[in-house]
Amino acid sequence: MIFVNTEGALPFADPSSLGEDVHRAERALQQVQSAGGRGSEWLGWRRILAAPDQEELLRTEQAAGRIRSHCDLFIVCGIGGSYLGAKAVIRALRDHFPGEGPEILFAGHHVGGRYLEQLLRYLERPAPDGRPREVCLNVISKSGTTLETAVAFRTLRNWMERRYGEEETARRIVATTGTGSGVLAALAAKKGYETFSIPEDVGGRFSVLTPVGLLPIAVAGIDIRSLLQGARSLYRQCEEPGSGMVRQLLEYAALRARFHDEGKTIDVIGSFEPELEDLGGWIQQLYGESEGKEGKGLFPVAASWSTDLHSIGQMVQEGRRNLIETFITVREPTSQLRVEPGPEGGGDPDGLSFLDGLTFHEINRQALAGTKEAHREGGVPVFEVAIQRLDEENLGGLLYFFQLFTAVYGYMLGINPFDQPGVEAYKRYMYRNLGKD
Amino acid sequence: MIFVNTEGALPFADPSSLGEDVHRAERALQQVQSAGGRGSEWLGWRRILAAPDQEELLRTEQAAGRIRSHCDLFIVCGIGGSYLGAKAVIRALRDHFPGEGPEILFAGHHVGGRYLEQLLRYLERPAPDGRPREVCLNVISKSGTTLETAVAFRTLRNWMERRYGEEETARRIVATTGTGSGVLAALAAKKGYETFSIPEDVGGRFSVLTPVGLLPIAVAGIDIRSLLQGARSLYRQCEEPGSGMVRQLLEYAALRARFHDEGKTIDVIGSFEPELEDLGGWIQQLYGESEGKEGKGLFPVAASWSTDLHSIGQMVQEGRRNLIETFITVREPTSQLRVEPGPEGGGDPDGLSFLDGLTFHEINRQALAGTKEAHREGGVPVFEVAIQRLDEENLGGLLYFFQLFTAVYGYMLGINPFDQPGVEAYKRYMYRNLGKD
Repeated sequence: MIFVNTEGALPFADPSSLGEDVHRAERALQQVQSAGGRGSEWLGWRRILAAPDQEELLRTEQAAGRIRSHCDLFIVCGIGGSYLGAKAVIRALRDHFPGEGPEILFAGHHVGGRYLEQLLRYLERPAPDGRPREVCLNVISKSGTTLETAVAFRTLRNWMERRYGEEETARRIVATTGTGSGVLAALAAKKGYETFSIPEDVGGRFSVLTPVGLLPIAVAGIDIRSLLQGARSLYRQCEEPGSGMVRQLLEYAALRARFHDEGKTIDVIGSFEPELEDLGGWIQQLYGESEGKEGKGLFPVAASWSTDLHSIGQMVQEGRRNLIETFITVREPTSQLRVEPGPEGGGDPDGLSFLDGLTFHEINRQALAGTKEAHREGGVPVFEVAIQRLDEENLGGLLYFFQLFTAVYGYMLGINPFDQPGVEAYKRYMYRNLGKD
Repeated sequence: MIFVNTEGALPFADPSSLGEDVHRAERALQQVQSAGGRGSEWLGWRRILAAPDQEELLRTEQAAGRIRSHCDLFIVCGIGGSYLGAKAVIRALRDHFPGEGPEILFAGHHVGGRYLEQLLRYLERPAPDGRPREVCLNVISKSGTTLETAVAFRTLRNWMERRYGEEETARRIVATTGTGSGVLAALAAKKGYETFSIPEDVGGRFSVLTPVGLLPIAVAGIDIRSLLQGARSLYRQCEEPGSGMVRQLLEYAALRARFHDEGKTIDVIGSFEPELEDLGGWIQQLYGESEGKEGKGLFPVAASWSTDLHSIGQMVQEGRRNLIETFITVREPTSQLRVEPGPEGGGDPDGLSFLDGLTFHEINRQALAGTKEAHREGGVPVFEVAIQRLDEENLGGLLYFFQLFTAVYGYMLGINPFDQPGVEAYKRYMYRNLGKD
């Protein structure tokens, strides 16, 4: 279950138009459900939850298990939707600091030569006991021609082949790619890599619950069955007309579309749980790439609270009044850590005695409550999207919720939420400059 | 020397008003230089470059040297301006992956209990050779009462005192704090910590070139004298009326203020060098907290290219036309890494043969050129702020340039660029909720 709290947003909306806006949202949801809207050939992110591929799931777990047992370092080589989902879930559920399981590294998400050189040096550093560290890699690219990923993959693959030989390297590389005749699929077949398919009807930013996201997430030791179960449960709740979940989704979409149409330009999306920082990056892509077209869309700004209160907080509080805000929250404590008693000797030398014995969770909650109140008072409509607990099941539900929300909201704006024609623009010029025919 | 390229912005500005706008910028610069504008009691970031404190610099280097030689883990405990500058410089100049020198960790930048628990566990993990890892800490807070930092510091200090005893802990903690009678200054005096002063006339987001930034930067093994030398050189160039540097700064300020006044609402600030990703976070605070007041300001969005072309790129290209963009670039290659020849056996199995033998730098430059062209064509005014080389001296100059720019631009907007009254709003509610009197 997801809890959408619109209390901080409602006072900024005209109550007389809310009913009609909710109807618009309802029609948009029906368009999604009946596959009757623009880009409806891209609804595979719903199909995979309606009828999960159990065999592929098992194979994903097996591949992840092999990597976990053999590798010290696991490189995820992909860009955009090919890695942001996995990164978000891993950051949310795994330790902030390296420890158990393979260390997960990212590559292929830019063309930084210095980064790649340093990564190669890092791969070559021996383990604490002096043996070489074992490296595995998952390359993720639907076509195989995305420049950033392809060029990093070639470099890393060559390094692995020099180190392990071609045959052993083939056992250490997994390719997640399109089912068609792409160059990566062909290369994987030739080299003999294990391969996972990106369904043709799932776009990058909607792919976290396919092998694109699931394999790296499973390598991180996260229970992908529970993640999928949570997503499926939310999926079912949203298919029931008039369910509490549907009503919340529609009201959120209605209000957000209203604020958009009335000229708000930015949605500041963030959490007070540092664990959810990278989820903000995933939502930023999901929202931004889906709605930013035809001169429309709210610019999604990913924030991490309370950190960023000391950065963009001033702007949110007192800058231009063109913002809305979305807080992603977790109801149950993610930690039981308490503020220890102050220094002995009495008095209040660090001025914190009013916090003695509180949990960090309680303080963080008051920071959230204070921020919502302050921003609302500053004229910013505030949404809250809450999950009950920070675990696989709740997070799976949240991922699906945001995907469905994006589709519904996109249709309300009258755009195709599933394409990204503007991403091609820089590529065209870049390829021309690089002399690609 | 900084190179400001306004070619991609000029076509979007009315040429007839540019002269007057430059004059406004000139008057604003004079206000800064004559300390005649709002908030002029906060110009210490200029004073420290005009007359550097050599003794303190030496003491900073000595403290950093001791920490480097004794510690495996170095915790920077601070929030906002107390750590963003150090993080930006360290990320820019040090290896992306842990290796030489103490590993640098951040704390006190939020109230995440789970993060802090995991950090404590990480501190307790032994070194590869089985010995306990040595921990040092730098707490940075002007008043000592900033909740996020104070509560994390108390937890970490108690942990250190349990592990090392009070006396030894005192040798491992350095406090960077205000010179007055703040609670952190008092605690440091009582405990016997080495202390560095945050000058009273320097605000957090302008403090990177004080011990706030310099101590952690020096601990990372970065040459802080060259950093300061670069900043001082830029400072001097900007004090010469009519110098090339001044002319560029004024034109940039004039155009940016014009776009602001004409209704642009967002400045997307980013680099194609992954090393400069955290510099974007520093600029985001500097710009956002300085100009976001009285209903004014461009919302600063930090981006990391080409990564984020696959995230917010679509929105920049085709969303609402309310953006300007600033690229931070480096002229000389940061790496000589070349794309290796493709797989043997001929053909073009990965479709990359057109890149064979190019350096990553050359490809990245064409990605930048293509992006500038595409975004400009999409209606986004594009600025480029370039440094010659990614090193201490150039980066020091860049830091000062952005600080001076912020002051000049703030005066053009008619606001006080040095205060942050809106940051208090959430604190008021939070403290009330927490029962602080």
